[in-house]
Amino acid sequence: MQTSTQAKTLTIIGSTGSIGTQALNIVRNRKNDFEIIALSAGSNFELLVKQIQEFKPKFISIKSFADQKKIQELFPDIKVLKDIKEIASVNVDICLSAIVGIAGLEANLIALENAQRLAIANKETLVAAGHLVNQKTKEFNTQLIPVDSEHVAIHHALGDYKKNDVKEILLTASGGPFRTFSLAQLESVTLEQALQHPNWSMGAKITIDSSTLVNKGLEVIEAKTLFDLDYQQIKVVIHPQSIIHSAVSFVDGNTIAQMGEPDMMVPIQYALDYPNKNIIQTKKDFDIFAYPNLSFEKPDLKKFPALALAYEAGNLAHSMPAVYNSANEAAVALFLQEEIKYLQICNIIEKEMQAHQIIKNPSLEDLLLIHSEMLNKYKTSKV
Amino acid sequence: MQTSTQAKTLTIIGSTGSIGTQALNIVRNRKNDFEIIALSAGSNFELLVKQIQEFKPKFISIKSFADQKKIQELFPDIKVLKDIKEIASVNVDICLSAIVGIAGLEANLIALENAQRLAIANKETLVAAGHLVNQKTKEFNTQLIPVDSEHVAIHHALGDYKKNDVKEILLTASGGPFRTFSLAQLESVTLEQALQHPNWSMGAKITIDSSTLVNKGLEVIEAKTLFDLDYQQIKVVIHPQSIIHSAVSFVDGNTIAQMGEPDMMVPIQYALDYPNKNIIQTKKDFDIFAYPNLSFEKPDLKKFPALALAYEAGNLAHSMPAVYNSANEAAVALFLQEEIKYLQICNIIEKEMQAHQIIKNPSLEDLLLIHSEMLNKYKTSKV
Repeated sequence: MQTSTQAKTLTIIGSTGSIGTQALNIVRNRKNDFEIIALSAGSNFELLVKQIQEFKPKFISIKSFADQKKIQELFPDIKVLKDIKEIASVNVDICLSAIVGIAGLEANLIALENAQRLAIANKETLVAAGHLVNQKTKEFNTQLIPVDSEHVAIHHALGDYKKNDVKEILLTASGGPFRTFSLAQLESVTLEQALQHPNWSMGAKITIDSSTLVNKGLEVIEAKTLFDLDYQQIKVVIHPQSIIHSAVSFVDGNTIAQMGEPDMMVPIQYALDYPNKNIIQTKKDFDIFAYPNLSFEKPDLKKFPALALAYEAGNLAHSMPAVYNSANEAAVALFLQEEIKYLQICNIIEKEMQAHQIIKNPSLEDLLLIHSEMLNKYKTSKV
Repeated sequence: MQTSTQAKTLTIIGSTGSIGTQALNIVRNRKNDFEIIALSAGSNFELLVKQIQEFKPKFISIKSFADQKKIQELFPDIKVLKDIKEIASVNVDICLSAIVGIAGLEANLIALENAQRLAIANKETLVAAGHLVNQKTKEFNTQLIPVDSEHVAIHHALGDYKKNDVKEILLTASGGPFRTFSLAQLESVTLEQALQHPNWSMGAKITIDSSTLVNKGLEVIEAKTLFDLDYQQIKVVIHPQSIIHSAVSFVDGNTIAQMGEPDMMVPIQYALDYPNKNIIQTKKDFDIFAYPNLSFEKPDLKKFPALALAYEAGNLAHSMPAVYNSANEAAVALFLQEEIKYLQICNIIEKEMQAHQIIKNPSLEDLLLIHSEMLNKYKTSKV
């Protein structure tokens, strides 16, 4: 257990979301270790006001102009920035990118230039723009640390092993609520059924993504960006108890697994503290005897073809992972509006991947265009 | 993966035993990394001769004077030392103590003065003389690295965590062949039954020790010596598949487990290479899907009281762990001669612990005396 001699300066993009508020829970108990410099929120004005009162950031951003004005009036000394790109431009020790969706893409690339460490919970950036992220990380010698529990587990398991020591990554997946469903049962899955997740409590979109295994597919591509291995070294393991968060097998005959109760506070703190370790009050103590049986099975790619499509998109690389991600986002939005059936989510991804003309080394603009065109194409007919 | 720039000098005490020969298998494939300086054997003259021919040590020892003479005649240039204490006096980078039993005690303490690292597979030394081992380790600034697969797993899981970061150790145990037996069934266990072990292929004494959980009890005390935690932080977990070799739970909410196929080559190489990692050809590749179910249960201390006695001996400390170890060794010898029944092994340990007057900070001589008196007391009546 080490305590920093100096508080680390910290920006949180997406401070009112699930990851953001849990990160602030950690900071609340460790005010000598972290100094909040900047917070950015989407639309949760009231929570942001409370966070400003408690953590006294120097900079904030919030989406609507009206909210910006109100905050400036309430806190005359604070510098209200106009968007998350400006927030990401502030120099800090750690920028925690806890925003969801492609909206984080540009800001994350800017943060890689201005933070010593980008702790990234934003899947879309790592999936769609892995090549841009790795370019920036190298150019600015930035630390890129995952926040996703699986990738934190892999990062942790890697320890001081080198890339060439890795035989394979065992990326665990709960398997979602439909793991034991037949194809016929999957055809009639309702929105209500899909919104239940057995182990983790999450937002609607990621809950659907977990059920289709798209979430695991995105994580496979994320792992490729973060750990630079071959896709055949990244193996998905269905592990319904979600106790082993992931594992890595090495050429020295050892496999290192990171285990624990599912509790996002733990990987968030890991990403903030790495390589230091600090005590944390988890919701529940880990007790191995509470899990007398841990099980492992291969994912059924017939029932969950979205996972196979992720490997395909990843291997095709360039603009294809962005298409995979955007097509899924568009399709899930339609499913959440009950405009398409459950299995159509995957059909849409497949159709869009087949139709796509690969753009080599896509620029940020290319990626944003792919995304906006896709969302426009599948725009909901409901208001 | 790192290759040493210079070969490490290596002594193996017990080179013709199971650990010794497996260590030489590793050295055989990595002659640029290790240079065998000294080998010592008990009675396996022919194998030692082969090992000398292949590995060309400068020093050897073998028990009988007749064998010593023959080796000197066969290899006039080799220096034949008179016992393992002299072998342990040779200055080397690594001394691998792969000898079984209390015979290794004195030599190991000497090796701690003369080797940069003692890689220790000798349980008895860590159990009976933990305080002496830790004194020497500190005084001579020697690295003490375990070879036992469980302790290697713990050492590995500890990584760069500090002692205060540890919440508890999960020391796994197969549970032995009688895990599911009733007390009544245990009463009539035969020697033949006891000599079968489900996962590891081992010698007779350790196979019996595994079945009574004495082996796990010894490992609990070993862990105390090696990792200097409280006994309540060392938790035994029955895990019949023997795939998780052990795990450590930390105050940061993470539990790190080391997994793999049971294959002693892996922990032996770990102990030789630490902190470096090198590729190894294991007997079998680890495939998580070959273990679709891993199970965990609490040890049943009613059926296996030897484990509770180990905690008791450990907590009483001083000379009591030596009594636990020696009483067991004496009792197992009688059981192997079919002179006592299976459950009497544990009865003898308990009786001897109750009768023992604790000697505070026992000297080497005290410990050797406890051992020889115990063996004399329970001497087999058979020739």
